[in-house]
Amino acid sequence: MNLSMIRYILGNVLAVEGLLMAPCSIVGYLYGEAEAQIYLIIGVCSLLLGGMLRWKKPANTVFYLKEGCVSTALSWILLSIIGCLPFVFTGEIPSFVDAFFETASGFTTTGASILADVEALSHVSLFWRSFTHWIGGMGVLVFVLAVVPMNGGSHMNLMRAESPGPTVGKLVPKVRATARILYIIYMVMTVVQILLLLVGGMALFDAVTLSFGTAGTGGFGVKNSSIADYSVYCQWVITAFMILFGINFNAYYLILLKHVKDAFSMEEVRAYLAIILSAVAVIFISILDLCEGVFDALTQAFFQVASIITTTGYSTADFDLWPTTAKLTLVILMFIGACAGSTGGGIKVSRFLIVGKTVGKEFGSYVHPKSIKKLQMDGKPIEHEVIRSTNVYFMTYLALFSLFLFLVSFEGLDLESTFTAVAATFNNIGPGLGAVGPTCNFGGLTIFSKWVLSFAMLAGRLEIFPMLMIFHPTLWKDGFFSRKKEQ
Amino acid sequence: MNLSMIRYILGNVLAVEGLLMAPCSIVGYLYGEAEAQIYLIIGVCSLLLGGMLRWKKPANTVFYLKEGCVSTALSWILLSIIGCLPFVFTGEIPSFVDAFFETASGFTTTGASILADVEALSHVSLFWRSFTHWIGGMGVLVFVLAVVPMNGGSHMNLMRAESPGPTVGKLVPKVRATARILYIIYMVMTVVQILLLLVGGMALFDAVTLSFGTAGTGGFGVKNSSIADYSVYCQWVITAFMILFGINFNAYYLILLKHVKDAFSMEEVRAYLAIILSAVAVIFISILDLCEGVFDALTQAFFQVASIITTTGYSTADFDLWPTTAKLTLVILMFIGACAGSTGGGIKVSRFLIVGKTVGKEFGSYVHPKSIKKLQMDGKPIEHEVIRSTNVYFMTYLALFSLFLFLVSFEGLDLESTFTAVAATFNNIGPGLGAVGPTCNFGGLTIFSKWVLSFAMLAGRLEIFPMLMIFHPTLWKDGFFSRKKEQ
Repeated sequence: MNLSMIRYILGNVLAVEGLLMAPCSIVGYLYGEAEAQIYLIIGVCSLLLGGMLRWKKPANTVFYLKEGCVSTALSWILLSIIGCLPFVFTGEIPSFVDAFFETASGFTTTGASILADVEALSHVSLFWRSFTHWIGGMGVLVFVLAVVPMNGGSHMNLMRAESPGPTVGKLVPKVRATARILYIIYMVMTVVQILLLLVGGMALFDAVTLSFGTAGTGGFGVKNSSIADYSVYCQWVITAFMILFGINFNAYYLILLKHVKDAFSMEEVRAYLAIILSAVAVIFISILDLCEGVFDALTQAFFQVASIITTTGYSTADFDLWPTTAKLTLVILMFIGACAGSTGGGIKVSRFLIVGKTVGKEFGSYVHPKSIKKLQMDGKPIEHEVIRSTNVYFMTYLALFSLFLFLVSFEGLDLESTFTAVAATFNNIGPGLGAVGPTCNFGGLTIFSKWVLSFAMLAGRLEIFPMLMIFHPTLWKDGFFSRKKEQ
Repeated sequence: MNLSMIRYILGNVLAVEGLLMAPCSIVGYLYGEAEAQIYLIIGVCSLLLGGMLRWKKPANTVFYLKEGCVSTALSWILLSIIGCLPFVFTGEIPSFVDAFFETASGFTTTGASILADVEALSHVSLFWRSFTHWIGGMGVLVFVLAVVPMNGGSHMNLMRAESPGPTVGKLVPKVRATARILYIIYMVMTVVQILLLLVGGMALFDAVTLSFGTAGTGGFGVKNSSIADYSVYCQWVITAFMILFGINFNAYYLILLKHVKDAFSMEEVRAYLAIILSAVAVIFISILDLCEGVFDALTQAFFQVASIITTTGYSTADFDLWPTTAKLTLVILMFIGACAGSTGGGIKVSRFLIVGKTVGKEFGSYVHPKSIKKLQMDGKPIEHEVIRSTNVYFMTYLALFSLFLFLVSFEGLDLESTFTAVAATFNNIGPGLGAVGPTCNFGGLTIFSKWVLSFAMLAGRLEIFPMLMIFHPTLWKDGFFSRKKEQ
């Protein structure tokens, strides 16, 4: 285990976090808030500490996937620990576990909150809270890769560990250039959303923070009513951008290259849009009686479907009161999630496509036992490696999901709340149903459940493997405690 | 598609059903019940009809897996249609859909009932109802194979379609001999259970019917209180036999051959027993406060764990009132199910073992990328084919489960009831939670839901693929409507 490289990467992550946190204090100073000072101090400390850790460049730059996984997992844990300190020191979230939960929820773009009264937070804290969504959405290490020159095989292994989806496609041969392109697309789209919200008369602060939450598919709001009190125009803008940020970013790159036709023929994107339309149809019919007319029902159905499938978690209605079919449709969407290579969470549409193709092939082999067919996606064969790792992902997902359910069941909530509390955090959505529904919050849970669900959020965001790797016995034996393998 | 062979097999199944049903009327005559006549008449008709269908032996005996699947699926549907006629004609379950649900529930060894008052049934109907469990437990086609000489490749493809588990092991080279050995073990164990229950002072009728329900891991009781009103001794006998019938029958064959050590070292059996003990421990702690002392808690925990993991579905307590952790543990057991090659349902322990090993291997490959390790079970390598079909099974299972959930959600029950109604039927258990809990029944559901859940039971018992095969478009194009492929 190359511990020096891991130290170097963690140093970079800390430095970047400091660089991002310190300027947030400006928002506080503009509003004349005393809390701003704390963001500045912690930001500078984080920058200094990170700078120290990354001072000495590692001599040995050999970097395997296991190191990629471990550094990614540790980076995200460290990010959440440092990122939650301002909440603790400003006294706005005095309990460390609550602050950690809230920050992990931010970085993992979950949007599950322990706060009953969001509006009581200072502007600087609200801003930082939404900003964590924006940072976490595209990925911290992707950001580090975009700005810090690194050598060795570290690039691809870091990207593979942090990026969502069954495969990682580099847009261009160089990982660093890929990371930059992704961040530029991301920034431009965020700015466009902010402008469109401003056009709708939304206040600048709200437009910026809500756009951060949409772009990262996070879901932290700045009002207790989430999005319900904004105009219908703003709700539709947010709906549209939630759907857009749930699309595989490769599609946007193809559009940039003027391969518009290729972008729209991506199987995953088509499936994603088809699922959205089907779900909207089901929910529209299901809630029509509860709404004020056809347009209202359509607005609510589109908003909530987009919010849940992209794992954003904004709400305009208390869907906990919807009929069973509508609720169940949302629960199913929670698991499907957005496209691979987007900022959304969940299992990802492409994994379901791969699995669907595998099952179809198996049925075919019953009918025509001698046919040999290679599975394809977007006209290219799907590697056996990808199919296998998709299967393994599903199984690990189910096992971990059951474990989380079991641990959270000690809470003594009803089964529906227990189930959706895990589903909403593990899939990085935010609100669940029942006791953790859109009008409730996670603040009432025990400390134990909060740690379990914080871990679930981190494991979900990093697609399980990197987070589990830090528990692998071999690493503890060979890597963390003894350094003899390094020479 | 070899339609003549399918006709021949269906004829055999009908004849066997008639041969099994007609003698049941004796039970009715002994109790002086008018209903006996109806069982005799329908039994004889079924025998005659079956005899006609199997009169002309097929000229072409070529028989592939697709024919195996289709004949198995059609056999089970036909069995349930004919088997439910006595309920309809005696007027005890006048609605056809209710009678079909009840009979499919019997043959698939689910034990979910639409009856609110079981005790109102005649003895002959109660006997037939429990007897369907016994027939369905080991498999109807396995029975046909054991008694009817057949040629061609049909044996193995029928057995593969009907037997539970990821692989089908023949105990001896000949399928027919294997089927006979299995049935003999099955009968002997059933008789031993009947005797032990009689020793405990249980009435003969109850001892026989409840043993049928235990052996097939069915769960139909003959009292409204299921097993709660029998003595603690009888409850422990039933607990022990539920666990025994959930064990892979290969283990018993090994014991018969005096390879006792091999039987106890079977990985699946060990895992199965370990899961039972862990679940009992969790539930014991969880319900201790609700019970009358340690022994009562242990009795209830053991009984309910054995009942649910083997997918029997008997109950001695209203576990719907248990704490969340206990209920959740039962829900998880619902999915795990019993051993492959037993009479139990669910996903099967061996599938979880295979999946666990696959996941473990994947983690290992992150740490040691170059290691090549072949997965093993009981010291033998697991074929790639088996791993692949296990993965496909899981995925199809999840897809079908979601579809059933969606269809049953129109019922408008709460999510917990909807979820467990599907889980309890698809896994062939019987009772769920909430509106379909152990003190409730499925009678209040709409006709639509009853058909959906009947299909779920059949699909679950036949492990999905055979039941889905009858919908495969190619078969409809090439097989059912045109006979040109046959020549």
